[in-house]
Amino acid sequence: MNSIKALALSAALLAAASALAQDPYEGKRERWLKAAEDAKPEFVYTTAKPVAVVKAVKDEAAFQGWRYEREGSPEDLYGKSFKTLETVTLDFGKHMVGYFTFHTKTLDRCMDAPVRLKFTFGELPAELNTPFDPWSKDRLGRGWMQDETVTLTRLDEWVRIPRRIAFRYVKIEMMGWPGGGYDFAIDDMTFTAQTTAGKVMTTLSPDCPEKIRRINEVGLETLKECMQTVYEDGPKRDQRLWIGDLYLEALANSCSFRNYSLTKRCLYLFAGLAREDGVLFAPVIEDPVPHPQYGTYIPAYAMLWNATLDDYLSDTGDRATADDLFPVAKIQIADGLSYLGENDLFDVGRKPAWHFIDHRPGLDVSASMQGVLIFALRKTYELASAIGRGNEVAEYPSLIKRLTKAAHKHMYDSKSGLVLSGPDKQVSVMSQAWLVIAGVLTPKEGAKAIRAALATEGRVMPGTPYATHYLVEAMLTCGMYKEAREYVEEYWGGMVDKGADTFWEAYDPEDDLYSPYGFVPLNSACHAWSCSPVYFIHKYPEVFQR
Amino acid sequence: MNSIKALALSAALLAAASALAQDPYEGKRERWLKAAEDAKPEFVYTTAKPVAVVKAVKDEAAFQGWRYEREGSPEDLYGKSFKTLETVTLDFGKHMVGYFTFHTKTLDRCMDAPVRLKFTFGELPAELNTPFDPWSKDRLGRGWMQDETVTLTRLDEWVRIPRRIAFRYVKIEMMGWPGGGYDFAIDDMTFTAQTTAGKVMTTLSPDCPEKIRRINEVGLETLKECMQTVYEDGPKRDQRLWIGDLYLEALANSCSFRNYSLTKRCLYLFAGLAREDGVLFAPVIEDPVPHPQYGTYIPAYAMLWNATLDDYLSDTGDRATADDLFPVAKIQIADGLSYLGENDLFDVGRKPAWHFIDHRPGLDVSASMQGVLIFALRKTYELASAIGRGNEVAEYPSLIKRLTKAAHKHMYDSKSGLVLSGPDKQVSVMSQAWLVIAGVLTPKEGAKAIRAALATEGRVMPGTPYATHYLVEAMLTCGMYKEAREYVEEYWGGMVDKGADTFWEAYDPEDDLYSPYGFVPLNSACHAWSCSPVYFIHKYPEVFQR
Repeated sequence: MNSIKALALSAALLAAASALAQDPYEGKRERWLKAAEDAKPEFVYTTAKPVAVVKAVKDEAAFQGWRYEREGSPEDLYGKSFKTLETVTLDFGKHMVGYFTFHTKTLDRCMDAPVRLKFTFGELPAELNTPFDPWSKDRLGRGWMQDETVTLTRLDEWVRIPRRIAFRYVKIEMMGWPGGGYDFAIDDMTFTAQTTAGKVMTTLSPDCPEKIRRINEVGLETLKECMQTVYEDGPKRDQRLWIGDLYLEALANSCSFRNYSLTKRCLYLFAGLAREDGVLFAPVIEDPVPHPQYGTYIPAYAMLWNATLDDYLSDTGDRATADDLFPVAKIQIADGLSYLGENDLFDVGRKPAWHFIDHRPGLDVSASMQGVLIFALRKTYELASAIGRGNEVAEYPSLIKRLTKAAHKHMYDSKSGLVLSGPDKQVSVMSQAWLVIAGVLTPKEGAKAIRAALATEGRVMPGTPYATHYLVEAMLTCGMYKEAREYVEEYWGGMVDKGADTFWEAYDPEDDLYSPYGFVPLNSACHAWSCSPVYFIHKYPEVFQR
Repeated sequence: MNSIKALALSAALLAAASALAQDPYEGKRERWLKAAEDAKPEFVYTTAKPVAVVKAVKDEAAFQGWRYEREGSPEDLYGKSFKTLETVTLDFGKHMVGYFTFHTKTLDRCMDAPVRLKFTFGELPAELNTPFDPWSKDRLGRGWMQDETVTLTRLDEWVRIPRRIAFRYVKIEMMGWPGGGYDFAIDDMTFTAQTTAGKVMTTLSPDCPEKIRRINEVGLETLKECMQTVYEDGPKRDQRLWIGDLYLEALANSCSFRNYSLTKRCLYLFAGLAREDGVLFAPVIEDPVPHPQYGTYIPAYAMLWNATLDDYLSDTGDRATADDLFPVAKIQIADGLSYLGENDLFDVGRKPAWHFIDHRPGLDVSASMQGVLIFALRKTYELASAIGRGNEVAEYPSLIKRLTKAAHKHMYDSKSGLVLSGPDKQVSVMSQAWLVIAGVLTPKEGAKAIRAALATEGRVMPGTPYATHYLVEAMLTCGMYKEAREYVEEYWGGMVDKGADTFWEAYDPEDDLYSPYGFVPLNSACHAWSCSPVYFIHKYPEVFQR
């Protein structure tokens, strides 16, 4: 497929933005996008071959009900007539992101008609054993499913599937009788895997137990696969840079690959592509030219961008970048504050926005949003102080105090020791976690609140590894070291026990078929926001590595 | 799709052939293939846009039961959401061969998921309105059907379908819901048509009636479309060079485009890729490198190659080529003679071979093969004489006499005035035609035989335009001018009346759904061997052009 022309979407945005006199980043956007481009890391490529021909086995005990069993070696396949075989599945041994090529060989006489083959790539066994069609319009786009049909008009050559693939298994099917009088084999396959992660720059203690070591390995693989020319959320779906994923990936990166150039690139991309009022869009997309996902704005994410910038400065000492981007941070805080309603409380109904904290349906996010805002104020003030610009945000400390006090007063129920969120006084684990992270609750209150919430019948549990990250972070913040470790071992370790070689986007230990999208194969099985054990394990060695 | 490596199939054949000491073309094959390569003509490209959005109408009165009705202009389509449209069919106004590109445009926000589109290209309306699947193994390869599925991972760019297409109509379908939150249109399409035909070098008499003029036009279009880097049989199916098609295309070419370089290339390709005993394979295939269709040998075709070489010499005066290739011609005759059985008659059972004269099931080809052999002897002797090498084939005149006499004695029934073929004394139109063309019957006998055969109940009629060519040629040979013209007007004119803008591979005036392949959409609607009215109309202007 030829890319002949690409619409300069970001150029159009820039033009639109600069037409507004009030663009707070006037004259800077182009330079910021250039800085993002300059910081783009190079790919490291590796090539891989399939390791086994496999057979799908329906097995209640297997994750999502399916597993693969070794049936033979790829070399056995390579000599065989594909006309009589018709379908085969191969295991490449581990998750990879990149491009798939295969080679065909004439076995008998010569090709009489074009050959049509379907390649279905899957991250997990169940994905390749669940029919995709008919596709419901309630789902995300059908195109996320990685089934690609190729017409060969010649044999005896290498063919590359144009689309970038994220997979471990590939099922190959003959699509219709290819005609008589000749025969052929698929006689070679190569996958060119790509990542910008580079080498792991950190080590674990020799005493680190095997279980934690394995969780760390799977976390590293997850992060590595998502590190492309941005920190992607999921290389299968939806292949874009979200601030929420960036924040957690950057945390894990600082404990592993230390590829800070990628973090810098992502920070600049969001800044250069911000809304005309300076507020950040939640996701940006690189192709055909970098552009935001118009209309998708998540206040919590915009504020977490500030935390990411603060961490980046701490990790790198790159004051120039922090200084350059500081005006952006101030605007995200101003935007967060604009949601404050009476009693200095974050009012989720104040204006329309997507207040994303977790995918769990029914979660009341009022308390969590109060926590995110206070946390962002703290991180932004820390950032300002570190670059000597505290004077520009001199009001932050008193704001932090006011919002903390308001939260403690109106959201914390000292009787039950629980944070209650929203008009229905909902007990959710996330409400406790965020008010701990924000420092609203003392460590003692926090530990009690988290334990009480987890013990409350009907409490809203975290629904994603993303939300679970903040729970573990909160536990560590208030000294619940044993419980934090146990939670990591049970939650992320549970995925490992179920066969994960990369961590999943969605995981409910009680329900293997949980999907936020109404269709399990749409779940991403290698998802950035699930990599955070790498951060916990290295950040708290005394908790995890002994 | 990248072509990284191509197996040198023809090189392997050459090696195999030269390993046999008895290769009659030793030391020449490589030079001949080089001559074929040197004679390859350049493409002339034109670009085209769709002329209408059309709607399929089921109509008993239409050819094969379907026709298209104009519904709107492509410009109307280009502004519309494709998500709400889901499917559309466009008419490009005429048959074309080449490459299809299309452009997409974001209408709302930005792409959320890859978009999967299916493009089905068809030469005829019924082809696009007959379900292809499930596909039976009794048919030719499913891959001949031109339905191509494309996954777009970006919008706002041009995408080219990798496969070469032969079509007039394209149906575009959305394959599954492409996801919410954005919208797009298909906002442009271009077809790059290619042919090596060049300009028409001949004209019709100003008196030429409209009907003949139109038949000539459709014949020219047919020939032009098939003139690629070889004379293809059909640019949709099966895209290769057969001697039978070459012979008729070369006849029509000499009356139209006069692109003799293409004829020369094809003659050399067959010679360079001949079987190790020097006999010609019936089809050759150009990709990935020129190679014969191993195992496919048709004695009648091998002999018609000689006729093509003789005509080429007459048309061009290129004695060097005729001289160079004359040894090949002698071997084809020797091979034809090897089928002679008792009574100097061609014995179709003497050894296994595909004695192709027509696709009509049940046709006895004994008499026709006798005719082909005599005709080839005559043409080859004419060729030998023209290059001063009659002495090398001095036995041909007496052979022609013997075979002619034998045919007249054993195959011609003077009582009925009919040629009877085979043990069951079958009356077929082809038997009469070939013995007329061979000069076995006098013009008077021939005219009587053809008329009698056509009038005989249960006679085997020609089943293809290919066979019909020889019937018309025979009529013209024995002075049946009026009937020849009527036959052309009724047979090829019948296709024109039914809407043909190129002539079809298979046409039975009585049965629109006739297919030699058990599935009508497999028929090629633009087929080389159907172009011969161009030859008749120009070769016999006094018969056709007034």
